[in-house]
Amino acid sequence: MTPHPNRITLTTPSWFRHRVAALPECISSPEDRMRLVLEFARTNVEHDTGGPFAAGVFEIGTGRVVAFGVNRVVPSGCSSAHAEIMALSLAQKRLGTYDLGRRDLPPHELVINWRPCAMCFGAVLWSGIRCLSIAGSGQELEELTGFDEGPIHPGWKSELARRGIEMQEGVLREEAVDLFRWFRSSGRLVYNARQG
Amino acid sequence: MTPHPNRITLTTPSWFRHRVAALPECISSPEDRMRLVLEFARTNVEHDTGGPFAAGVFEIGTGRVVAFGVNRVVPSGCSSAHAEIMALSLAQKRLGTYDLGRRDLPPHELVINWRPCAMCFGAVLWSGIRCLSIAGSGQELEELTGFDEGPIHPGWKSELARRGIEMQEGVLREEAVDLFRWFRSSGRLVYNARQG
Repeated sequence: MTPHPNRITLTTPSWFRHRVAALPECISSPEDRMRLVLEFARTNVEHDTGGPFAAGVFEIGTGRVVAFGVNRVVPSGCSSAHAEIMALSLAQKRLGTYDLGRRDLPPHELVINWRPCAMCFGAVLWSGIRCLSIAGSGQELEELTGFDEGPIHPGWKSELARRGIEMQEGVLREEAVDLFRWFRSSGRLVYNARQG
Repeated sequence: MTPHPNRITLTTPSWFRHRVAALPECISSPEDRMRLVLEFARTNVEHDTGGPFAAGVFEIGTGRVVAFGVNRVVPSGCSSAHAEIMALSLAQKRLGTYDLGRRDLPPHELVINWRPCAMCFGAVLWSGIRCLSIAGSGQELEELTGFDEGPIHPGWKSELARRGIEMQEGVLREEAVDLFRWFRSSGRLVYNARQG
């Protein structure tokens, strides 16, 4: 074996950097924010830089863009490099804090193109975001992509509420399902530990 | 705001690097593996380089050391930098794969000093490990440290089994609880999103 590594580095793809640089400072409508997340998810697959999942962190009132992230599991060789972990970690790096809910900061929203998996549900809770906006939840994701969402807590919605995290569901749901249909029709594979 | 970052970097502390370099190649007994994990967790607090949590990835048969990790949330400014995420990601980097359960690799075990939180439970499932060894589970962690474990799935043990992950519980349980007692008596604070 090589020596014990002491550094984990996760990066964004080069197309992503160009796209992020061209974004407006604020995206005011919830639909426009989700539309961008869906665009990032699709472009990630088209460029073969990860799975069909993206996430964005925004300031709640203004819609100011804080950070985007895309799934990077396979290219990074890291099973935790889900879109939510990428976006939340990049947002925390940009703001210089592990707590996006810090009292002196404006409240933040995480926008993602489906219900988070079991791991990312936990990551959402620890991140300090105050609103979770998802296109949908339900069987469509697992059925169309073969991806395993894992055992998320059955009371996940009330667990969010109990921790003061508002949830907005159903933003561009049909467009999100269409993306998964397109992904399936392209014959691509989502990494799935259950098959391992 | 600063420009959108495009890189997440998580590192191990310098004491950690020295300690890892001095480890034997293999640690054959489960108790010795847990004793090391407890040592890393305690040293992490003593050096003020993170919370009282550590994790180690080992080859199951030989006990060969693949990677260790310690909690790095506060020093890294990253709420996902839990010990399990660090150890699993470093192990995956060392082996050059996002799947520690890949067929051409020996099976791997993750050793941690308490039941994983909601996020890390998901990370365990996606990592490809085949055995989870914990000192214990139960209220002691939350009561003694104030740390929020989050809404882990109520059927988490059977969910592990269903995915072919064996679990070993109760390895040096008293020593693990003693570590949390010592942590509390030192007056230190665990970052807790619930209080944010």
